[in-house]
Amino acid sequence: MQEVLTFADIRAAAVRIAAQVNRTPVLRCAPLEAELDTQIFCKCENFQEMGAFKIRGATNAVLSLLAAAAAHGVATHSSGNHGAALALAARRRGIPAWVVMPENSSAFKKRAVAGYGAQIIYCEPTMQGREAALARCVAETGAAVVHPFDDPVVMAGQGTAALELHEEIPDLDLVLAPVGGGGLLSGTAVATRALRPACRIIGAEPFGADDAWRSLQAGHIEPVAHPDTVCDGLRATIGPLTFAVLRMQVDDIVRVTDAEVIAAMHFAWERMKIIIEPSAAVVLAALRAARVPVKGLRVGVILSGGNVDLDHLPW
Amino acid sequence: MQEVLTFADIRAAAVRIAAQVNRTPVLRCAPLEAELDTQIFCKCENFQEMGAFKIRGATNAVLSLLAAAAAHGVATHSSGNHGAALALAARRRGIPAWVVMPENSSAFKKRAVAGYGAQIIYCEPTMQGREAALARCVAETGAAVVHPFDDPVVMAGQGTAALELHEEIPDLDLVLAPVGGGGLLSGTAVATRALRPACRIIGAEPFGADDAWRSLQAGHIEPVAHPDTVCDGLRATIGPLTFAVLRMQVDDIVRVTDAEVIAAMHFAWERMKIIIEPSAAVVLAALRAARVPVKGLRVGVILSGGNVDLDHLPW
Repeated sequence: MQEVLTFADIRAAAVRIAAQVNRTPVLRCAPLEAELDTQIFCKCENFQEMGAFKIRGATNAVLSLLAAAAAHGVATHSSGNHGAALALAARRRGIPAWVVMPENSSAFKKRAVAGYGAQIIYCEPTMQGREAALARCVAETGAAVVHPFDDPVVMAGQGTAALELHEEIPDLDLVLAPVGGGGLLSGTAVATRALRPACRIIGAEPFGADDAWRSLQAGHIEPVAHPDTVCDGLRATIGPLTFAVLRMQVDDIVRVTDAEVIAAMHFAWERMKIIIEPSAAVVLAALRAARVPVKGLRVGVILSGGNVDLDHLPW
Repeated sequence: MQEVLTFADIRAAAVRIAAQVNRTPVLRCAPLEAELDTQIFCKCENFQEMGAFKIRGATNAVLSLLAAAAAHGVATHSSGNHGAALALAARRRGIPAWVVMPENSSAFKKRAVAGYGAQIIYCEPTMQGREAALARCVAETGAAVVHPFDDPVVMAGQGTAALELHEEIPDLDLVLAPVGGGGLLSGTAVATRALRPACRIIGAEPFGADDAWRSLQAGHIEPVAHPDTVCDGLRATIGPLTFAVLRMQVDDIVRVTDAEVIAAMHFAWERMKIIIEPSAAVVLAALRAARVPVKGLRVGVILSGGNVDLDHLPW
């Protein structure tokens, strides 16, 4: 069986996107390490261009398009960060972008997408609503669809964050990443398996959108019909391609409550002095709620983004 | 004339405190650099132990005490961060600490001081009130006073932040630091003059507590009787020793409004994804309000701290 995503894809993505993404810092945090009695290395994708890892996959996708296809622009559906990322990547290549967004996306994320120059198309906040709107857009414009996660070129881009993390900290015992649609976790898993085979790979998601956990338990994709979580970046359902990678490569998925997410986010702001969004805080919540035993281990976490509306904080 | 503070003092401090302070990261910020058309290197003392550079000076002071003096403990007056820093440094050496705090200090900073194990003594929010309460405390306990800024051993400790910055970025054209009592700016100036003689050194302070600007203009210390600024760490008046260093070593002091400080703080949170407190945002405010021409220069800024009560944000 051919692999959906290989480490060579991730290496190629890293070269392709190098000039357009930040090599984000890896920070440690004494208060968190003291609390957990372990060493935590935080890959700070909140410091990434446009505030989240999503620019990695979007840039890899946009730069991989042949000129003839790129000329018609790109389109996607996204609850926010992927849309902003695709908008920015498209603007840098000088091509148009259309972004289908659920009506209930945060005003903050809507402004970001528009601010990077994309045209927003609003839809109902369901996967069906997103896909129908996107299909109409593509039929009208001829734009190339860049899926937010279920595309090997996107997954490869997202995997470059873990690639950098392992290059900087070569002896991790465990890596945690959030799982929404599974693009970041897929890329993280493939990069980790290649660079550090003994390292465990764990995904974290909110109970209110625990399709990844349910799907890995069931052995097939189990959508959550009505995701209900503060983690606005993790409401999507994993796709056939990300599911194929996750079931082969990931050791475990752990779940946390929204209250744990909010407490972890508050902890990061107050004690670590970094702005992370709820979808990023989910990994810290998993650690702080002891969903993952980490004592004495060297743990890498991908803090996936920091796009938060400062006028609407969850506490 | 003997120098108040030498670079050798700062070098010695760096060795003395190395095991107890973080070598904080230097971050860049694409949005800020694009806005200012320059290169900005942010020395992130908000990521320092207890959330501010103050632990450097306090630790240097506590570790410099002979055992006989240290046994009676240490005492200080502080609007917050120095008190927390001294409390932590004292706890690590196993000696008691007393901290005189103005009654109007933020609840957040009071909790921090108490949390690190110090005994708080409340006073009126004036320099006279602080000093009277401190004198009583010392008379009763025999504690050694560690002044928040006007002491060479404290100034030397604060200078280690700039020492690290220049070690990491050896070709800066300009360094900015906040000025409250002047300890950080003194240490920054002496370290900078030694390591990078051609580099300009500029202090930033709020109009509502512009004693440093007034004093350098007048040629003698000019207190501001009733400081009025959101920058709760910058309300103190510079002292004889810091004034002596500043007038010799600093190229300029620039002033900003509280509105500019709050806007800069919001910018740092929203775009840089880091938590900084108003007293740290003052340097970004000076840059963003064009109080300092920086186009094309390599600029270092000391982001002095990130202790903010998340339940009481200034916007």
